[in-house]
Amino acid sequence: MNNDMIKTNCMINQNIILTGDRPTGSLHLGHYVGSLKSRVALQHSCKQFILIADMQALTDNFERPKFIKNNILQLMAAYMSVELNPDKNIFVLQSAIPELAELTIHYMNLVHLGRLQRNPTVKHEIEQKSLENSLSIGFLCYPISQAADITAFKANLVPVGQDQVPMIEQTNEIVRKFNRLYYTNCLKECKPYLSDVSRLMGINGAEKAGKSTNNAIFLNESSKSLKEKVFSMYTDSNHIKISDPGQVEGNVVFAYLDAFYNNIEHLNELKQHYKKGGLGDVYLKKLLFDTLENFIAPVRDKYNQYSNDELLDILRTGTEIARKVAKNTLSEIRQALCLTNFKF
Amino acid sequence: MNNDMIKTNCMINQNIILTGDRPTGSLHLGHYVGSLKSRVALQHSCKQFILIADMQALTDNFERPKFIKNNILQLMAAYMSVELNPDKNIFVLQSAIPELAELTIHYMNLVHLGRLQRNPTVKHEIEQKSLENSLSIGFLCYPISQAADITAFKANLVPVGQDQVPMIEQTNEIVRKFNRLYYTNCLKECKPYLSDVSRLMGINGAEKAGKSTNNAIFLNESSKSLKEKVFSMYTDSNHIKISDPGQVEGNVVFAYLDAFYNNIEHLNELKQHYKKGGLGDVYLKKLLFDTLENFIAPVRDKYNQYSNDELLDILRTGTEIARKVAKNTLSEIRQALCLTNFKF
Repeated sequence: MNNDMIKTNCMINQNIILTGDRPTGSLHLGHYVGSLKSRVALQHSCKQFILIADMQALTDNFERPKFIKNNILQLMAAYMSVELNPDKNIFVLQSAIPELAELTIHYMNLVHLGRLQRNPTVKHEIEQKSLENSLSIGFLCYPISQAADITAFKANLVPVGQDQVPMIEQTNEIVRKFNRLYYTNCLKECKPYLSDVSRLMGINGAEKAGKSTNNAIFLNESSKSLKEKVFSMYTDSNHIKISDPGQVEGNVVFAYLDAFYNNIEHLNELKQHYKKGGLGDVYLKKLLFDTLENFIAPVRDKYNQYSNDELLDILRTGTEIARKVAKNTLSEIRQALCLTNFKF
Repeated sequence: MNNDMIKTNCMINQNIILTGDRPTGSLHLGHYVGSLKSRVALQHSCKQFILIADMQALTDNFERPKFIKNNILQLMAAYMSVELNPDKNIFVLQSAIPELAELTIHYMNLVHLGRLQRNPTVKHEIEQKSLENSLSIGFLCYPISQAADITAFKANLVPVGQDQVPMIEQTNEIVRKFNRLYYTNCLKECKPYLSDVSRLMGINGAEKAGKSTNNAIFLNESSKSLKEKVFSMYTDSNHIKISDPGQVEGNVVFAYLDAFYNNIEHLNELKQHYKKGGLGDVYLKKLLFDTLENFIAPVRDKYNQYSNDELLDILRTGTEIARKVAKNTLSEIRQALCLTNFKF
């Protein structure tokens, strides 16, 4: 099933999507290209749950809970700024759905320690964050908590980058094991929905733009700061004089043009010209700045359009809807596990 | 602080006790000696929460949830049979308090994987149950779940055997780390309350009587079966003729007499006589049978005194009270973690 087929399918079957972000910093163009853009496209045809994963963020930010809290409404503002419509999406605050914690606990019995330790995504993150010697059980278990998020809302599509595909596999393993052990089909398997451009490189040429590494352009970047960032971008260190032939691959300016400049024919001409030599970085950076400023200016305006109270209200409304769905799922799970339900 | 001081203290300060059992089989005399007896004594002076740990039982019995469910009311019947008074104790069904699951998830961020793997109690159980190759994360985390149970009810005393002391240490580590990290004192440290006779050997001479190993005398054992079990007890394999000198240490009959025969002077005389030779096993076994039958007969009657509906009602009432306490604790924890509280 390719992405176009999914878009068509959405309209027919109402696919259910679970997506979201950890509230650990401002969203940037990398998030837009990697996920926000496709959320905007899918919101019209799918039932889309957008989860603010504050509980997951705490697994490796437990020593700064205020920081996490302060980022929640920032994230909501960012969602509004790229026109994720509150009437078309269900915004969910993870920590306000205690059913997700209980689901996680139930699933933990179905996952072996070795399986978590072998998870490539977790392994990579442990290395990246130097967590080897301070690995908390909470962090190690976050793929199980993700499985709880996905299954609670019966999502069948989960937009992820290629590096996150093992998370989907982990979820489906839990789903199959649970359904088999307890003779039920209450849990649904899900599929990864891979976005077309899954990654945007950092402005310093790093493999990935990251909120924490200060090499990204934020959605609400000021015009002045945007110009500084674009003009500080890494291009090709061998392209010293304008007449030198330049390299397009790994060139940050071209990577951003690829993602945001819509005149593809012109872009291809520029690439040819650059490779031959005779096209200067300054020309390209001006073009990129104009392109990005065109994109960001309206986003920046919409960023401050809602008050904190309004943002909180949108989040509360979505979370209330989502909690009902999660409660239903948990009730099926508890029935399968023969757990007693007292009414109080 | 010795046990007598605790009993006195209880009357002054209202110590809060958390104790309980996994619903994985019928209770036996080993449970009586190791814990039920002291619960009966403490119920008059302390606030005692008695937890039926069905969630914990599922961590290594997840493939048989019906079995766990069926043992819950068995456990309640056993509690009633030894005169744990429903008006003096708070009986709690673990799975009916979802706040315990959420607390567990919060605490998981504060515990390193290595710390859990080094826990001596867990290590021993993993070996005993041959879980090395199938160790679920749920089972590995049960000390964290126990910390949630203890702290949720603000228990300051936890009756345990010597082998369970590391569990108390794990709980107090979490308490200290949480209070320190979040500048709070909402969590309370607890102390182990070691019972005087912490273990009763199995009737086959095994180190510990166990529900699963069929070497125990159950609280509702029939008179006929009790006699069979007593007369099959392991004594001293070198004590062949009555005139042979016999060994008292490791002799199951003496171990049970030590625990249940109240005439200590007479028991000491019997031990001397047995060591010298001239005292037969049959005489001792008759004495033990009479002693145990005296103890068990009224227990057996009371075992069937309550209907299932009545037992469930007692459990529901206690769980409702306990849930309010757990909710309060969780609300303090969530405040410390800066979590948003939506009202719905």
